[in-house]
Order: sequence, then C-alpha cells, then structure tokens
Amino acid sequence: MKQFTAKSFNIPALKGISAKTIEEHLKLYQGYVKNSNGIMEMYGKYNADPVANSYVLGELGRRFSFEYNGMRNHEVYFSALEGGPLPLKDSSPFKKLIAEDWKSFDEWLNGFKIMAATTRGIGWAVLWYDRKEKRLLASWVDEQHLGQLQDCAMILGVDMWEHSYVADYQPSGKKQYVEDYIANLNWEIIEENFKKASA
Amino acid sequence: MKQFTAKSFNIPALKGISAKTIEEHLKLYQGYVKNSNGIMEMYGKYNADPVANSYVLGELGRRFSFEYNGMRNHEVYFSALEGGPLPLKDSSPFKKLIAEDWKSFDEWLNGFKIMAATTRGIGWAVLWYDRKEKRLLASWVDEQHLGQLQDCAMILGVDMWEHSYVADYQPSGKKQYVEDYIANLNWEIIEENFKKASA
Amino acid sequence: MKQFTAKSFNIPALKGISAKTIEEHLKLYQGYVKNSNGIMEMYGKYNADPVANSYVLGELGRRFSFEYNGMRNHEVYFSALEGGPLPLKDSSPFKKLIAEDWKSFDEWLNGFKIMAATTRGIGWAVLWYDRKEKRLLASWVDEQHLGQLQDCAMILGVDMWEHSYVADYQPSGKKQYVEDYIANLNWEIIEENFKKASA
Amino acid sequence: MKQFTAKSFNIPALKGISAKTIEEHLKLYQGYVKNSNGIMEMYGKYNADPVANSYVLGELGRRFSFEYNGMRNHEVYFSALEGGPLPLKDSSPFKKLIAEDWKSFDEWLNGFKIMAATTRGIGWAVLWYDRKEKRLLASWVDEQHLGQLQDCAMILGVDMWEHSYVADYQPSGKKQYVEDYIANLNWEIIEENFKKASA
Repeated sequence: MKQFTAKSFNIPALKGISAKTIEEHLKLYQGYVKNSNGIMEMYGKYNADPVANSYVLGELGRRFSFEYNGMRNHEVYFSALEGGPLPLKDSSPFKKLIAEDWKSFDEWLNGFKIMAATTRGIGWAVLWYDRKEKRLLASWVDEQHLGQLQDCAMILGVDMWEHSYVADYQPSGKKQYVEDYIANLNWEIIEENFKKASA
Repeated sequence: MKQFTAKSFNIPALKGISAKTIEEHLKLYQGYVKNSNGIMEMYGKYNADPVANSYVLGELGRRFSFEYNGMRNHEVYFSALEGGPLPLKDSSPFKKLIAEDWKSFDEWLNGFKIMAATTRGIGWAVLWYDRKEKRLLASWVDEQHLGQLQDCAMILGVDMWEHSYVADYQPSGKKQYVEDYIANLNWEIIEENFKKASA
Repeated sequence: MKQFTAKSFNIPALKGISAKTIEEHLKLYQGYVKNSNGIMEMYGKYNADPVANSYVLGELGRRFSFEYNGMRNHEVYFSALEGGPLPLKDSSPFKKLIAEDWKSFDEWLNGFKIMAATTRGIGWAVLWYDRKEKRLLASWVDEQHLGQLQDCAMILGVDMWEHSYVADYQPSGKKQYVEDYIANLNWEIIEENFKKASA
Repeated sequence: MKQFTAKSFNIPALKGISAKTIEEHLKLYQGYVKNSNGIMEMYGKYNADPVANSYVLGELGRRFSFEYNGMRNHEVYFSALEGGPLPLKDSSPFKKLIAEDWKSFDEWLNGFKIMAATTRGIGWAVLWYDRKEKRLLASWVDEQHLGQLQDCAMILGVDMWEHSYVADYQPSGKKQYVEDYIANLNWEIIEENFKKASA
C-alpha cells in the first residue's frame, strides 16, 4: 500500500513561539501522517468483508478527512516558517491579486488577523486560491476537516488550535500569537504556494 | 465584486431519476451559487466595522464553506450525467490507476457503491485525485463541507442527500438510486476530470 | 446488555404529509434505535482489547450521539402527531411562558416557522425547556446530534431532513411542509412534554 | 431579557493542574456565558426583521449551541473539583449502577480514561445519566456542542480541549492530565449530579 510520509521542516528560532512548542507541534503533525496511513490500513483490513463491517468502514471513511487534512494543514503551516521572515515584494502578482480583491494588502491582512484571533472555537484561518475562478478566498476551517474548500489550494493557514500557542502565550495571549505567527512568515514561500496553484 | 455563476447542464432522460427530481435538484444547486455570492456580499457589508461585527463575520467565514462546496459538489454531480451513459475504456490511464490501488476496477466500484449506500446520514461518496501524491483516494463528505480533502480534485461524487432520490425512490430505495446514478454516468467526463487534475 | 426499544405511534391521517411518508419515516426511526443498540454491541466487542482497538472505539464513542439523538428526536416528532390536531389552551402555563419570552405566542410561532423553513441545510428546528434556568430556548440542530442543548428537554422538534417532506412536497415545498406539520400538531402533547420537564 | 450568569467555583490547589491554568480556563468559561447572552441579544436585534435577516438569524440559531454547551460543560468540569478529592463510597447507588453496566467500577474507569486520552481531536469524554432509560451512558462530545445526548444529564465530563492541559503538560502529556484530573475529583459532587438527575 502506498504510504503518506512525514516531511521535515527547517524552522529557525521564532519570535514568540518557543522551540519546545514547535517540537511538540511537529509530533502532532507526525501523528496525523501516521493515522492517515493507519486508517488506510484498517480500511483494507475491514474491507475483507465490506458488508459485515459496513458500519465501521463508514466511520473510517468519514474520519479519514480529519487525519488527512490534519497532515496537509500542518505542512502549509510549518513550511511557511522555513528560512525565516521575508517580506512580500510589491511587484508580486500574488500581492496585486490580494489588493484587487480586498482594496489593499494591509486591509486584507488586518481583516485576516481579526478573523484568526476572534472566530470562536479552534480551527484555521485560511487564505485559498480557487483554481476554477482564478481568485483568492478567505474562510475558516473548524478542527482540521470541517470547511476545507474543494479543489482550492491552501496558500496560507494560521493554526488556531490551542496546541499552537497555549504553552507560550496562555489562552488569553491568542491575539499576540496571531501577530507573532504572521511576523515569522517567509512570504516568499507563501508566494510560491500561490505560483504553484495558479500555474 | 467577482461573482460565482451557475452553470447549465445538458442532462438527458435518465434511468430511475426523474426529470422533475433533476429540475428541483438544479434549483438547489442554484441556491448554493446564490448564497455563495450572498455571503461574500454580507461579508463585505459587515466588514465595514470588523471589530463590532466580529461575531457575525466569524460565523459567515465559517459557513461560507457550506455554500461554496454545495456549489462545487453539484457541478461534479450534474456534469457527469451530460451526454448519457458511456463506459470507461480499458486502455484508460484512470482505469489503470484505480486497478493499481484497489486490485480491480470492479472491486473498487463494488466497495464504492457499498460506501455510498450504507454510510449513515446524508452527504457524499467521493473519489478524489490527490495532486500531491498523484494517487486516488475515496472518502465520505458529510453535508457539503465536512470532510472535503484539501487540494484534492473531486473526480466522482455521488450525492447522498435525500433530495437526490427520495421523491423517486422513497428513503428505502437508497440502494437502487446508487445503482442507477452509477448506471447513468458518462465515464468519459469522469476520465476528463481525472485528466485535468493530473495534468 | 440493556436494549433501546422502538416505540409505536398512533398517527392519524395528516394534512399534507402522506401515510407513505410516515411509514417510510418510521422505518428510519427504527433504524436509529437498531443502530444505537448496534453501537453498544460493537463497543462491547471491541472493548475486549481497548488499547489495540482504541481508534475504532473512539469513532464509535463519537458516533453514538448520531444514532441516539436520531432516536430521541423522532420520538418527539412522531408523538406530537398522535391523537390529531388540538390547540394550546390560553390558560396553559406553557403558553404563558412562551409569551413572556417572545412577546406573544403568535410572534414566537411566526419566528419559529421562519427558522424551520429558512435555516440552510438539514436538521431540526427545536423548542427546548432549560431545566436549570426554568426557561424556554429555541435553536437549530444540524443532522441529529450537532447542537443538542445539554440537559434540556426537547418540547417541540420540526424535522427538516428531506425524508420528512421531499416525496410529498418536492424540495421547493419546504415552507408548506413546515406550515402543515405545525397544523397537524396536538398541542396537548407538547404541553405535556413541557409539564414533565418542568415538574 | 433573562440573562445567563457565570458561577463561581471554590477550587483548591490541584495535583498537576496549575492555578494559572484554572485561572485562564475560568476566563474561557466566562466567555461562553457572555457569548450565550450575546447571541440572545443579537438574535433579538436581527429578529426585528426576520425575513431580511434570515441568513444571519439562521447562523446564530445554529451557533447558540456552541456557546450554551461551552457554558454547561465547564460548570460540570469545575464544580467536580470543589472541596478537594473525595472517593465514591462503595455503598453508593451510583457506584452500583456503574458496576451493573460495566462489570466493575474499575473496569469502567479504565475504559473511560482510555476514551478520554486516545479519542482523536479535542472535545469531552462524558458520563451521562439517561433520564428516559434510567441508565448510564458514556460517549464523546466534539468541540462543545457536537454530540450532546438529548435530555441526558452530564454526570462527569473531562475537558479534552488543549487549554485544559497544554500549558502544564505539553500536548504529549495528555494521558497524565487525564490521570490527574480524575485524581482531583470530588466524587461526592459527581454522585450528587447523579442523584439530582435520577430523582
């Protein structure tokens, strides 16, 4: 059976977010990869008798999206920190497209940070590239799998699960965590995400 | 503001599924398109004061995925019926990839139909193409937006919401509806979905 | 193992809702009872080795609420139709409490019908009695189990799953179905639900 | 309008769980109370024109359960810590009922701790009293509102959201947190929850 494989990320010292938090967070990511493979394996096993095991197969088929998206979300999250903070060039087509849809890059970023910091519950604040419409979209994903947009590429994702920030910031430091994660971004990688999706 | 636009589908007379059901079902699809635009518009309006309206903005940002995916899911569902039933050629790379992952096309199709007919609740039985792994995946989507796989293309989606079949089959005819939807498929379009995603 | 048992309901001929729809709907109810017992049984079986089976046990423990609430919701839905339509007496403490919280019974009923007919997606429009606060609350439940209010009694529940109305009304007849279900209610039974919960 | 009111809890020094975590956790609880009132208030405001505002009203009616259950879950969680750890008497009818349904109290507790520590994602491990069947049930609640059992009383609830333990234990200390929360319980209060619900 084909396997999903956990990636490695070369993450420098970060503003606000401790090395210990990143270390623990990476273990959680590896858990999603492991469990994506685990469901595939269990699925194969129970599928030997698909009628007798239909209830359990149904639940595994329903839950796979939690593990799979937990894997993919984190790959976007961690890779955007690689190489240390780098700004988005004014000449970037990605920056221009943001400005087209939201008046200006700064206005968009301000609204995006408010969404990340104030949407109730845990989940992800996400900037998407919609391949079909060739446009950007922003929306919220609950948990890992509730609210992914079909066939859209996640260009930027801010993890608002509490394991991302509670050890460093306490729950009441949520807003500062959002500021710091954004400050730590390598926008050249985010632009690369956009380029690949829009090619 | 950029608008999403409802597509038209050229759907022939179908086995089992009445023209009336398709007519009503298309109205529901158009509702998803309308409400995707509606949320974008409301979002713009409330965003004039993002701090005072943060709660409502958060809920709209959470709910957008329901309308958006309701639109996309149905586009895959209806387009696969266009042109009338056509088989998948044995020489098709898509058919070969299915056989690689699930022993044979028939074994896969049998398991897929069981998933569609027996998974509890309403939603979608989906065959995906995972762009990152260059592989096919099958899983269940609850409602429209709970369980979409990130950046995966929906190659085939069987709508298991009750509006798809209850007027023609009654709830107890669920299994026959799955058989008939599959029998009505134009596999050349499904193969085209695969080609576009894997290009 | 203790078993859940499907109840019988003595439902007269109804306005708008056909006997066939009730017959099929009761089969779905019986499916929830059967699957509530089924999960308990599977849970017992996999629990023989709770560590090795922890993933499947976790999913069964998560999904139980779907089956259980599917059972309970329908018991409130069907029992409110028993004995045929009877109005709520003006002297009823239940009617007075509604008027306290929502200005008047008619204003509440109007808003409740709008919630039932216009909330997007499938689920339940519910009037609850909150035992702790000794007050009534109205809210929406998605599917069967997403949004139940803890330790609150369901006094009235309008099933907005499509099996409730699509065969008789088509999807576009949703609003008329809500009117008809309300017109079919025996309010003495609903008042009885309130009395039991508030005793 | 009637208001929900945040309760105070008299929580002693705990094993493993720091005073800082409890302090921050109580602020989150107060946020649920505040937002339960906030939704009621917004609902009243938008209800001045229920047709024009039907989309937003629908979303508020859907989301209320998140805030409401966030409030109720935490009231069960914190109150069970009041007065410091006290065991469950062997003569207790509650203990006997557990033993009836799960062979022995210890076997039940062991399985319950495994469910709390291994169920994927965030949420609550819950022991319920089912008023209708006069029996105990154990199940999982996702987030705050996904999986509550209708009209069942929460007798015991272990908060598995990460704000409960990540600052003190790191994500990898999840299992120890479950052990410690259980060790901190005042079972006389839990028994009292059972008595009230079963009276």
